[in-house]
Amino acid sequence: MMWTVKAVGLGVVAASLSLELFVWFLRRLKPGRTLHEVLFFPSEMACVEHIFIPSSPHSCLCPLPHGVETSFSRLLGRILSAKSSLDLCIFCFSNMDLCRAVLALHSKGVTIQVLADKDYAAVPGSQIGVLRKAGICVRCDGAPVYMHHKFAVVDGRLLITGSLNWTLTAVQSNMENVLITEEPELVRPFIIEFSRLWAFNDPAPSHHSVDQKPAHVVSRTCD
Amino acid sequence: MMWTVKAVGLGVVAASLSLELFVWFLRRLKPGRTLHEVLFFPSEMACVEHIFIPSSPHSCLCPLPHGVETSFSRLLGRILSAKSSLDLCIFCFSNMDLCRAVLALHSKGVTIQVLADKDYAAVPGSQIGVLRKAGICVRCDGAPVYMHHKFAVVDGRLLITGSLNWTLTAVQSNMENVLITEEPELVRPFIIEFSRLWAFNDPAPSHHSVDQKPAHVVSRTCD
Repeated sequence: MMWTVKAVGLGVVAASLSLELFVWFLRRLKPGRTLHEVLFFPSEMACVEHIFIPSSPHSCLCPLPHGVETSFSRLLGRILSAKSSLDLCIFCFSNMDLCRAVLALHSKGVTIQVLADKDYAAVPGSQIGVLRKAGICVRCDGAPVYMHHKFAVVDGRLLITGSLNWTLTAVQSNMENVLITEEPELVRPFIIEFSRLWAFNDPAPSHHSVDQKPAHVVSRTCD
Repeated sequence: MMWTVKAVGLGVVAASLSLELFVWFLRRLKPGRTLHEVLFFPSEMACVEHIFIPSSPHSCLCPLPHGVETSFSRLLGRILSAKSSLDLCIFCFSNMDLCRAVLALHSKGVTIQVLADKDYAAVPGSQIGVLRKAGICVRCDGAPVYMHHKFAVVDGRLLITGSLNWTLTAVQSNMENVLITEEPELVRPFIIEFSRLWAFNDPAPSHHSVDQKPAHVVSRTCD
């Protein structure tokens, strides 16, 4: 009978430890699923053609280095990973490769919303007009202050933010950073802020309400 | 004897389940320890005196609202939470309250390193000279491109980054964001980049080496 006691006891212990190990293993896997990445600029210059046309990696004959992974190629890859939506809130947007990426997503049926600073949308070289002409939904913030954000939310789950404006100078010359994360506690506030600014800058005035006023309006009343 | 078997078996099951519950509880607590916060600007204007002098929250007689928590008061609080070090990499620094916070940390013995853009360090209203005069270690990036970062690392564990320059306009007028996180995968790259830029901008030329060259120098060679 003592053997039965020992067998039952050991069996239960083994089962419990296996369960514990299984749970521990599952939890070890979980953090790996939350993507975090930091990119620093300026980016080394390299050909990015293969990012737009992955099927023909060696077709480009441009003089830039090929097959080199750079901060910029990684940024482009993250943007082009969008499957359903891209919400972009950007101060300056003049980089033609980044514009090409947004246009490529649009042509694939990804829902794109672009919120830009009105003054900078009109400067020479701005790609905001190009996006509009392609039929992408663009709204401009016309407040007499800077809409200084530089963030994008991909598929409502991936945040791309930092100091980097979407310009050639920022990518190739300046010292800049881009932080990319799927952490919901960081992504969620940006989604909410985008929705608020998007609604506030709806050209149809009836959509405006006190609740939708962006923080800068509240601030100006306090000044 | 069957009672003994049942008792031992149940005892082992109860002990294992308790252990499982305890581990689950510990793991539930763990995510709460990784701080994530997002602040949006412009910030509502409010008195911040109580953040600098917590012992006398009602001593200030200024006309601003008192006891109001704002994005700016939270940002100040995070900066002032530094116990051992503050590494700041900033494009524009003219905000006097933020300067006061850095000076307060310096007077408490917190080790402070400030890396600034050379051109913007010299503009009227810049607080970089004030920090230098107070004995804070400041280095300026003199490259003919923008040192456009706006990030700080508190105690080597808390990252403060975003679109916000440390100016009055950015805090009170512009639409801006500040992302605050303790996530090591996000903090660590910024610590490494700060060290690299700090070493590269050491005024002693013997400290420069190819390995310490910031990315923008590499980029310029590729242009």
